[in-house]
Amino acid sequence: MGIQKFTVETSKKEEFIDITAEVRDALRKLKRRDAICTVFTPHTTAAITINENADPSVARDMLQGLRKMVPETGHHHAEGNSPAHIKSSIIGCSEQIPVENGDLALGTWQGIYFCEFDGPRERSVFVK
Amino acid sequence: MGIQKFTVETSKKEEFIDITAEVRDALRKLKRRDAICTVFTPHTTAAITINENADPSVARDMLQGLRKMVPETGHHHAEGNSPAHIKSSIIGCSEQIPVENGDLALGTWQGIYFCEFDGPRERSVFVK
Amino acid sequence: MGIQKFTVETSKKEEFIDITAEVRDALRKLKRRDAICTVFTPHTTAAITINENADPSVARDMLQGLRKMVPETGHHHAEGNSPAHIKSSIIGCSEQIPVENGDLALGTWQGIYFCEFDGPRERSVFVK
Repeated sequence: MGIQKFTVETSKKEEFIDITAEVRDALRKLKRRDAICTVFTPHTTAAITINENADPSVARDMLQGLRKMVPETGHHHAEGNSPAHIKSSIIGCSEQIPVENGDLALGTWQGIYFCEFDGPRERSVFVK
Repeated sequence: MGIQKFTVETSKKEEFIDITAEVRDALRKLKRRDAICTVFTPHTTAAITINENADPSVARDMLQGLRKMVPETGHHHAEGNSPAHIKSSIIGCSEQIPVENGDLALGTWQGIYFCEFDGPRERSVFVK
Repeated sequence: MGIQKFTVETSKKEEFIDITAEVRDALRKLKRRDAICTVFTPHTTAAITINENADPSVARDMLQGLRKMVPETGHHHAEGNSPAHIKSSIIGCSEQIPVENGDLALGTWQGIYFCEFDGPRERSVFVK
């Protein structure tokens, strides 16, 4: 089956980056027509999600919603980035998308997002 | 491998609908005895989850719990359905269930739910 | 492909237990070098997540963060464990990890956690 890897450069502390095109490229290289595509990030303060890619204010509202759910203060972890770890587990570090006729079976409005919660950093994404 | 698709008619703004029987039907048609079953919904204001199917008040408490976590006001997205997008990413648009001897290896109390967060609508579910 | 199963004994009401070594053992027995590893728990008041395994205060902060997000009171379910059901669906009952050269392609800081939300109990985990 093989695995494809690419990097994402984030430029902010918290950011959603649309990686749908990069995942499609990786899928083309894997030459699979009938499969499940797993998109996985090997980091504990980042995540992968699928959501609307038409209006950028959706990603902004999602980051704001998560900030309201997970307060910045009152944590024990000495590095001070516990909110980023919590958001990573809430959203999850992978997504699975059915592959049909060699393409991702995404809905009209669905895009795949890399979610940065403790940037800016260079991050990795695996596609399998 | 193939893919099976079915539709779900939701009748409320927010609703959990048990689709375990539909997923089992789809799995039978796919004739797989030893696999991973992916249940995926191609929408950005809906989700798939696995939870208790014995007492319907669990689903009601989950919808209420999510409403407390994600406030209805203060969002930018012009359509006004940002809370539905946020809940979709928190719960996630797919679930993976091991298949053993041709059946879903679900626990005694586990059922598969379609989660509507911006209905009522006709929705699609893919099983692979 | 086969499936491997093991049990986890939890000792508290809420607890994160690192099961990375047990998952690696199960993967060795499945003898797969190039695959996706699914870790699944068949319970509705528990979950599987991937997060930092270096500093134990991260797990403590995550449990505390989830308790702040999901209030203990105001639920309908007669068993009184609705918060555990809600946390189970937020975190999710499975994780998928790419397998490369026979090993889990986890990041340096990533460990696989069994999340107990309604213990202490004996719990099952499936690896496929």
